[in-house]
Amino acid sequence: MIEDGAVKAGSLLAGLPAAPLAKEITDVLADAREVRIERIVSTGQVTPEGEWYDQETDEWVLVVAGAARLRIESETADRDLAPGDWVLLPAHCRHRVTWTQSEPPTVWLAVHFADRSSAR
Amino acid sequence: MIEDGAVKAGSLLAGLPAAPLAKEITDVLADAREVRIERIVSTGQVTPEGEWYDQETDEWVLVVAGAARLRIESETADRDLAPGDWVLLPAHCRHRVTWTQSEPPTVWLAVHFADRSSAR
Repeated sequence: MIEDGAVKAGSLLAGLPAAPLAKEITDVLADAREVRIERIVSTGQVTPEGEWYDQETDEWVLVVAGAARLRIESETADRDLAPGDWVLLPAHCRHRVTWTQSEPPTVWLAVHFADRSSAR
Repeated sequence: MIEDGAVKAGSLLAGLPAAPLAKEITDVLADAREVRIERIVSTGQVTPEGEWYDQETDEWVLVVAGAARLRIESETADRDLAPGDWVLLPAHCRHRVTWTQSEPPTVWLAVHFADRSSAR
């Protein structure tokens, strides 16, 4: 990430690991009171068997590169995610990552935000 | 965009126009009190000559596909943006888009958010 003057900038595709990682890498790209934007790099990591993410905030998640499978507890099958695919996970929508491509790595963009419109 | 049950999902790369558009297309993917996530498809559109965007909110913007050039008023040259490149534009950071690739179209992801951390 480069910061020159007031402007932060970078590439989601820069600095990717050449080999599988022991654990995922999360970089916070923007952090405000109501929103946090992260890049997450996965190389095969999944949610541990039997565990579910159950988050206090909404999450908008995008696969930027690589591939992944996502299971939503209320659904009967995994969702296959390819580059460009996004999912809006409401708070407390229990979900788990069941597979991520290792090589080349899987790059996620995650936008966490606290307040949802009452119109939705 | 597909909405089944509580979960909205889609692909940033689906439904792209085959030919240049008369104007940009903006799809709102998520809309909450403090954050709005949009896909914007450009096919050569630029900010009109002499005009600058001067926004009340911060904007985190990513080039997903295609290519673009962005000028920030306080800088001396355009920034070239390729897929994966992102820029965090603080509120009132005057900027303009000086070029977008037309074919294949340029796909942007824009995250607008109202409140910045005092830590930044």
